[in-house]
Amino acid sequence: MLRLFVTGGTFDKEYDEISGALFFKDTHVDEMLALGRCRVPVAIETVMLLDSLQMTDADRDTIADRCRSCAETHIVITHGTDTMVETAAVLARSVAGKTIVLTGAMVPYAFGSSDGLFNLGSAISFAQVLPAGVWVAMNGTHFAWDDVKKDKAEGAFKTLR
Amino acid sequence: MLRLFVTGGTFDKEYDEISGALFFKDTHVDEMLALGRCRVPVAIETVMLLDSLQMTDADRDTIADRCRSCAETHIVITHGTDTMVETAAVLARSVAGKTIVLTGAMVPYAFGSSDGLFNLGSAISFAQVLPAGVWVAMNGTHFAWDDVKKDKAEGAFKTLR
Amino acid sequence: MLRLFVTGGTFDKEYDEISGALFFKDTHVDEMLALGRCRVPVAIETVMLLDSLQMTDADRDTIADRCRSCAETHIVITHGTDTMVETAAVLARSVAGKTIVLTGAMVPYAFGSSDGLFNLGSAISFAQVLPAGVWVAMNGTHFAWDDVKKDKAEGAFKTLR
Amino acid sequence: MLRLFVTGGTFDKEYDEISGALFFKDTHVDEMLALGRCRVPVAIETVMLLDSLQMTDADRDTIADRCRSCAETHIVITHGTDTMVETAAVLARSVAGKTIVLTGAMVPYAFGSSDGLFNLGSAISFAQVLPAGVWVAMNGTHFAWDDVKKDKAEGAFKTLR
Repeated sequence: MLRLFVTGGTFDKEYDEISGALFFKDTHVDEMLALGRCRVPVAIETVMLLDSLQMTDADRDTIADRCRSCAETHIVITHGTDTMVETAAVLARSVAGKTIVLTGAMVPYAFGSSDGLFNLGSAISFAQVLPAGVWVAMNGTHFAWDDVKKDKAEGAFKTLR
Repeated sequence: MLRLFVTGGTFDKEYDEISGALFFKDTHVDEMLALGRCRVPVAIETVMLLDSLQMTDADRDTIADRCRSCAETHIVITHGTDTMVETAAVLARSVAGKTIVLTGAMVPYAFGSSDGLFNLGSAISFAQVLPAGVWVAMNGTHFAWDDVKKDKAEGAFKTLR
Repeated sequence: MLRLFVTGGTFDKEYDEISGALFFKDTHVDEMLALGRCRVPVAIETVMLLDSLQMTDADRDTIADRCRSCAETHIVITHGTDTMVETAAVLARSVAGKTIVLTGAMVPYAFGSSDGLFNLGSAISFAQVLPAGVWVAMNGTHFAWDDVKKDKAEGAFKTLR
Repeated sequence: MLRLFVTGGTFDKEYDEISGALFFKDTHVDEMLALGRCRVPVAIETVMLLDSLQMTDADRDTIADRCRSCAETHIVITHGTDTMVETAAVLARSVAGKTIVLTGAMVPYAFGSSDGLFNLGSAISFAQVLPAGVWVAMNGTHFAWDDVKKDKAEGAFKTLR
């Protein structure tokens, strides 16, 4: 059994047709796992629905608490890309003995051109086979939490070297 | 660098609007990797475009030859689900020292409700981290080649036990 | 109020992921009207779900009966393209004083590349403003029932001249 | 031959995966007509790509000029919904003897849940059969330019009565 914590991010943004703005309504993760006919048991829990630029230290502590207290040892977290690396560092310092994989999307799942389903398939897979530790899985690649940064100009995750 | 061999299967079927039948035109794997913004280098090669029920022993030998002769040691193969397990067995007997992951789809990628993108993200990920050997990756799960069967009534892959 | 009769056709075909064949489950017309945020009141009725090559004279009589007996004077019929013109001729001979627009799709709505939503928007519009008579509306064009044929090689509807 | 003038609006907005904001790149109208397998000849011209809240009197004069000077007498205009009614009024006062149909979308075409393709099929159809005058076609309904308003709270076009 995998545990999947939803925290928001581009992944789950939607278009509000009244205001013309992007907003959060509900997570799409359950519908994405259904589309992927995912046969790995996954317990989904929405911890928060935030743009990761608005995530506070207290929010990160909440996520870390949930990672420590849940029964599962293999965890996927969906997260905004802008501060995914910061959250990974908090988890690495405060959660021991679990495989935690953070993932997200460059384009909302609700929009046709999203990388979300590809990333979710990837994160679910890495979470089953990587050793204990905190990892970032984006666009087919996995990174150790202490060797990754987001190149904001390019919209891509890279190693520090 | 990963090597990806295309062999056809449901993955790449399309709808012929003149005849109303399903057929193969070209692989969609390159467009799927673009959609996933895949940042792992992948060398794609279309070996054949076959419904896997039509695949012969000679076809399987061709696939095995390509696995042996290519420079890469980590390989993904897209394949029809009906005989994926047979091809996996042929590869296990004839290719040594390489990680080979077979994947496919229950619904063509060209149709809205496909599991293809999820499976491709999953297979690309498993291929990078699983040890040498032949594996089947479908719907978030990975199976060793000698412990998997397709349950055709249910449309799902399962272990033999 | 428009009346919409569903009779099947490519429009409503789906992919059976167990058998790999195309089949009918339910109509998609209600979900298509919801996607189009259609604000014209439409009463939807599924009369049959048939590939139009399998439609019999008795089936066409059933459709004509429903057109005559319904309260509405403006009617859209979704129909397979192969025999749409034959059904139009039957309706022209047996239903008087109503505007009837037949439409369909070259590619099933459930597949990403369908013309179905465009055709449905078109047929709903033509049905509101064309005079009484029987019409075929496909791919932006409307044809009188006695001046239209399907060019099967090209997959297009054309006038007889 | 229909003339189609692109002016922007929700219809053509896209998601910028670097900034996370919505923006205009190019019109999608040609790809939408291809998806609809539209067989009515349509001459597409991008006049501007604007959010209609930013459209000025000078912009509306430009659109009216193009409507007067083009050879075609049947015209579709894609336009943001917020000021579509204002532009319709300008056109009604300054263009004579042509059938002009304004349309738009509540959700960008590039996002999966768009009403754009339905509206485009509808507008193309109304433009062929409505008499000379200026019309708004949204979500299956058509309105005369002087009997329509956008209900912004509800996101719907309505008659004035």
